[in-house]
Amino acid sequence: MKNYRFLLQYEGTRYQGWQRQESSENTIQGKLEMLLSRMCGHKVEVQGSGRTDAGVHALGQVANAHMCTEKTPQEIMEYMNQYLPEDIGVLSVKEVSERFHSRLNARGKTYCYRIINSPVPQVFQRRYAHTVVEKLDVEAMRQGAGFLVGKHDFAAFTSAKKGKKSTVRTVEEISIERQNDMILLTFSGDGFLYHMVRILTGTLLEVGLGRRKPEEIIEILNSGSRAAAGELVPAKGLTLVEVRY
Amino acid sequence: MKNYRFLLQYEGTRYQGWQRQESSENTIQGKLEMLLSRMCGHKVEVQGSGRTDAGVHALGQVANAHMCTEKTPQEIMEYMNQYLPEDIGVLSVKEVSERFHSRLNARGKTYCYRIINSPVPQVFQRRYAHTVVEKLDVEAMRQGAGFLVGKHDFAAFTSAKKGKKSTVRTVEEISIERQNDMILLTFSGDGFLYHMVRILTGTLLEVGLGRRKPEEIIEILNSGSRAAAGELVPAKGLTLVEVRY
Repeated sequence: MKNYRFLLQYEGTRYQGWQRQESSENTIQGKLEMLLSRMCGHKVEVQGSGRTDAGVHALGQVANAHMCTEKTPQEIMEYMNQYLPEDIGVLSVKEVSERFHSRLNARGKTYCYRIINSPVPQVFQRRYAHTVVEKLDVEAMRQGAGFLVGKHDFAAFTSAKKGKKSTVRTVEEISIERQNDMILLTFSGDGFLYHMVRILTGTLLEVGLGRRKPEEIIEILNSGSRAAAGELVPAKGLTLVEVRY
Repeated sequence: MKNYRFLLQYEGTRYQGWQRQESSENTIQGKLEMLLSRMCGHKVEVQGSGRTDAGVHALGQVANAHMCTEKTPQEIMEYMNQYLPEDIGVLSVKEVSERFHSRLNARGKTYCYRIINSPVPQVFQRRYAHTVVEKLDVEAMRQGAGFLVGKHDFAAFTSAKKGKKSTVRTVEEISIERQNDMILLTFSGDGFLYHMVRILTGTLLEVGLGRRKPEEIIEILNSGSRAAAGELVPAKGLTLVEVRY
């Protein structure tokens, strides 16, 4: 058995998310495992750096799998790109150390949330961005985001039920840029809780719309209460950009 | 009756092209005419700056229509964006002079043809670009393109049957740029014949692959024979970027 590391791209539109499900064939992990098991002639488990939800895209998801195969990494990549659906692409395959684990070894991730901030439709971005017609105050959103950067308990910003697992994470950077009618929110951190980027974005949107003051972010963090934060914005605006090791 | 000018975006993937057809409801012109006729309560004919073929996209198609309506241009735009399918977008609506004609008054157009030049898939570009795996020699393509710029008889570069109509056109500029794994060919000219941009691109591709010398472009132009030129490349790589007046 050798351990292989995959760099993957996918458009999440058609999928029930990353994670394999009994009830659905339409998951990224499921598609990869089915194909690699066929290629190797033994059952292959593919480990992702983390789950992406239904509808979320990836420009640079990382995964690994232990496999027995005569193929070179280049040949594995060609095989995968030949047989995978066209909305999943393999950008690289490398043999890595036995111990490499795409989730446990991940040191950080970057996500991007895209917002079309205009009443004018952007036909070519519609699958990858959420539309907000009212003009957003980017400067206020940046002020709000400033309170989120650092090591905090993000319990208020997750849909996960309260449990024993820590909800403390470090957000290293949030950049908010306007490019014409598009607003890009880029989040980098050591890890993100379930739905965290989408709830952070939903909360910053309320700041951008003037419905909350930037300083209220502090209270929401301190409350630890999901009800205090903003809405979960749609999955299609979210893209996993990069995983760092 | 007032005359209105529309600036339009569309993803051509799902459509049988711009031009209304008896046999198909799935044309851009057909969708627009059906909607505007319903809006006005009288039959509306929409004139485009030119036809785009099945599968071709537009970032900036221009059209016009004579209509009787109480709505302001802004209201017309909102109505259209509300009821049109999400792969057609109206970027602006303006009232223009009675005599404005989107096709006859067009002074020039710009098209872009996009090529993914890599064996590595680009999932997010797959609907808008044609893939060529073998490495292309962009410098040779530029040399070949140099012979196409200017006023020439482009009879060799059209699928239209020979007729009385002139096949002389002026190509003002062809730029060929590599952006990582993507090659963008941008064509500006006073007008383009049926399939002309796609056959020009197919011919330049053969130059880029080393199958023809750049100078052969001169012979192809002089031959006036479609058989001498390269292949028609797929529609999905082509986008109408701009129409100038």
